[in-house]
Amino acid sequence: MELDEILACRLDAARKKAEPCTIVIFGASGDLTARKLIPALYHLSLNELWPAPVRIVGFARRPKTSEAWRAELQEALGRFSRRGAPDPAAWERFAASLFYCQGDIAEAAAYEELRRLLDDTDDLRLKQNLLFYLAISPSQFAEAAGRLHEAGLLHKEGEAPGWQRVVVEKPFGHDAESARQLNASLTRFVHERQLFRIDHYLGKETVQNILLFRFSNAIFEPIWSRQCVDHVQIVVSESLGVGARGGYYEESGALRDIVQNHLLQVLALMAMEPPVSLDAEAIRDEKVKLLRSVRIPFPDQVASSAARGQYLAGPDGAPAYRQEPKVRPDSNVETYAALRLFIDNWRWSGVPFYLRSGKRLPLTASEVRVQFRPTPNVLFAAQCGANLDANAITLRLQPNEGITLRINGKVPGASTEIRPVRMQFSYQAEFGAYTPEAYERLLLEAVSGDATLFIRRDEVEASWGIVDPVRQAWSRQPLTADEMYAAGSWGPPAAARLVAARGHAWRNPQPQ
Amino acid sequence: MELDEILACRLDAARKKAEPCTIVIFGASGDLTARKLIPALYHLSLNELWPAPVRIVGFARRPKTSEAWRAELQEALGRFSRRGAPDPAAWERFAASLFYCQGDIAEAAAYEELRRLLDDTDDLRLKQNLLFYLAISPSQFAEAAGRLHEAGLLHKEGEAPGWQRVVVEKPFGHDAESARQLNASLTRFVHERQLFRIDHYLGKETVQNILLFRFSNAIFEPIWSRQCVDHVQIVVSESLGVGARGGYYEESGALRDIVQNHLLQVLALMAMEPPVSLDAEAIRDEKVKLLRSVRIPFPDQVASSAARGQYLAGPDGAPAYRQEPKVRPDSNVETYAALRLFIDNWRWSGVPFYLRSGKRLPLTASEVRVQFRPTPNVLFAAQCGANLDANAITLRLQPNEGITLRINGKVPGASTEIRPVRMQFSYQAEFGAYTPEAYERLLLEAVSGDATLFIRRDEVEASWGIVDPVRQAWSRQPLTADEMYAAGSWGPPAAARLVAARGHAWRNPQPQ
Repeated sequence: MELDEILACRLDAARKKAEPCTIVIFGASGDLTARKLIPALYHLSLNELWPAPVRIVGFARRPKTSEAWRAELQEALGRFSRRGAPDPAAWERFAASLFYCQGDIAEAAAYEELRRLLDDTDDLRLKQNLLFYLAISPSQFAEAAGRLHEAGLLHKEGEAPGWQRVVVEKPFGHDAESARQLNASLTRFVHERQLFRIDHYLGKETVQNILLFRFSNAIFEPIWSRQCVDHVQIVVSESLGVGARGGYYEESGALRDIVQNHLLQVLALMAMEPPVSLDAEAIRDEKVKLLRSVRIPFPDQVASSAARGQYLAGPDGAPAYRQEPKVRPDSNVETYAALRLFIDNWRWSGVPFYLRSGKRLPLTASEVRVQFRPTPNVLFAAQCGANLDANAITLRLQPNEGITLRINGKVPGASTEIRPVRMQFSYQAEFGAYTPEAYERLLLEAVSGDATLFIRRDEVEASWGIVDPVRQAWSRQPLTADEMYAAGSWGPPAAARLVAARGHAWRNPQPQ
Repeated sequence: MELDEILACRLDAARKKAEPCTIVIFGASGDLTARKLIPALYHLSLNELWPAPVRIVGFARRPKTSEAWRAELQEALGRFSRRGAPDPAAWERFAASLFYCQGDIAEAAAYEELRRLLDDTDDLRLKQNLLFYLAISPSQFAEAAGRLHEAGLLHKEGEAPGWQRVVVEKPFGHDAESARQLNASLTRFVHERQLFRIDHYLGKETVQNILLFRFSNAIFEPIWSRQCVDHVQIVVSESLGVGARGGYYEESGALRDIVQNHLLQVLALMAMEPPVSLDAEAIRDEKVKLLRSVRIPFPDQVASSAARGQYLAGPDGAPAYRQEPKVRPDSNVETYAALRLFIDNWRWSGVPFYLRSGKRLPLTASEVRVQFRPTPNVLFAAQCGANLDANAITLRLQPNEGITLRINGKVPGASTEIRPVRMQFSYQAEFGAYTPEAYERLLLEAVSGDATLFIRRDEVEASWGIVDPVRQAWSRQPLTADEMYAAGSWGPPAAARLVAARGHAWRNPQPQ
């Protein structure tokens, strides 16, 4: 790449003027804090985009001193950071901003203690600008918000100085109704725009890049519709089983764990209309429109438009799902879910979108494949028959994020032998191995008040509306033999039939 | 590339059933024979697609024996073959089919001698199937054909057993009128379909691949028109000067040497409509239609739609064109030619096609760049302004043949920095370093009777019709200072103005 072609086009350097604030982490003793949040915050603290000063307060039940918490985190950072053990001087500077507050989410006294700690500064911004990160059970979201409000720490925007925001992790509800209730509870204390619902997939570079890929290149938009697209496949495959998370997974299953959030979010980004602007609300408006255009299956259509699976033991001795810890031996929970969705709008009418996700599949990968309609059956296609492959654009989300265009090329030589070849773009090959962690991006955006990468209330509710009928139908039917799959395979026979019904086939991610 | 994705789609293995024949090379002492034709024929002889037996007769004025000619060629093969010295046993087998015939093109007796040599075989096919390769001056084409006819060696198809074909090298005429006369002379003795006019650029893998790229992939056709294309650039640049070929070049110039044939052929392949079939006549029908749709500039439009140049001495001490051997010291001949053409048909109306070729440019390369219209000035484009680059597809014809798609990508990290990135496909990276020589392909096609890669009478005449007005206008005007360029630069100021007039800029090939 020539230097003179590198465009210094910094869109939002100005917008990223994040203000000094205090970040309060509820669930500070948890895994997420040690593995993701603190490493992300530490790396951000090394970055010039990150505001100074920032204080970080850990809130959890276990008694410990700030010093002990700092030592724990330093040790964890050495284990979990992609860059290894932190530089001692940089860590010292960062650790000075870490404070621990012992307390129970359900006890009012704990919030008084928290308030005293927050007040203990001369910097008004650190007292008034508060980001509450709820890394706790969703069942506690409403209670925590309510008690923060009672303690005078959380206000609707405009009713108190500074700003307060609440960041929550999925799952956000367990169906449309519970999501609506949870939204109603939280918005008693904050405006919707103060609520930041995380889907950590949205922090991935390539998911953000979907928007840029589609809307900064003029050549894809003309072919991005039912005129040219045959069908779309979106896959999130995981090679691991549920492991120690059996208890959580028994309440969730693949549909709630991945499809309702990650897969539908990627679908929305891939298929939505161009937004009016790049503002968070304009983008989320279009995502909601898209999700509301998805045809919701009637109960009697679920059997033909969705497929599920549960993993059996693998040939490598991996346990079956029903043998995993905290899983019922007759569990009916799906570890694999596949949907065929149709989008009833002008652009996508009649184009199947296949979404699938599963555990204990052959490899861990996420990708979107836009499969174009076959070449007209004349000229080369007529001579090659079914052997001429249709074009496809694959956006790999992980691992080795990048873009692949599959075209037909000519094998050199006298005969006109055709075979599919790939044109590739790899972030790693182009920009080097460093790719920022999703959580760094998400925390920076939340502190900056940019909600683009977070999920709005109406998006959450629309997404639940799509998967609820499927979940309900499945919960009424016990799993059949056709829905079981060996660990290490690409899923059950039922899923193969789902795509075969329209002459399609799953295109599995390839090892990178 | 996975093995199971390799499509064994051999289109024309059957069609390539070339029959045994005798190839008679006129101009057998020349450079082309030793450097290109004999190496190509030798390599073909190692190939299973090549018929056996094939005899090769060299015809030239210098007296020598067949043995001496074979020894010369063996030595030359060691020097010029891309594979180095031939395997002795394979060469012996091949050399046994080589015969030399001494004679003057203008003397009837020489053709009697040739006929005796051709008759000296028991294989009827070697007597009757005759491919005459005229590697001689174009002024001798008609005479050679006439005398071959008189000697009973060349007949119109159907008037004698077997088949005879005539292969001629460019230049085919020096303007439309002379091309018409030459065509009329030759078709006194053979049908048009027996005439194989070589443009060795058409033997290049990627030029053949243009057809396959366009017509075996469904995603490019929808964007291959004025709806999406801003303009097209086709360039053949050469780093060398005219060297020892000054005498030839003084009669030719860049317009006749490259533009009339190579560049207009590439233009036709890039821009033509899909043919009815892959047969030679169907493809050539479409090429002719395209060439006839090119708007021919009126004499007073040449100044605004064409630019020429002549190289001056270079900073490295390279001589100016006018200092080259056999070049007139006040020569008005162009060593650089650029045209802006418009194609007046439904698909391309209003889209400029820029063609250029020159000697003593910074590097030797040929490529076609389809520059798409800018991204609509909203969203990312609005924020990046003029810095957001438009998409482009570049087909590199040489060196390192391949395809590049230029898109805008996102620089990883928190800011939304955009820069152009390339998706690449390289024949060498995909299939290894071996790429067949253009002449191997062309000779195999001529022996097989497939005229797809050769230029039909009406194509030649239409091409001359496009360049004749430019040539005439230039010949009336002496070169100006604005039309001179330093050796090693990308051409004269006049050429830069040609594209700047419509807000465009030359996109120069990059070193590979």
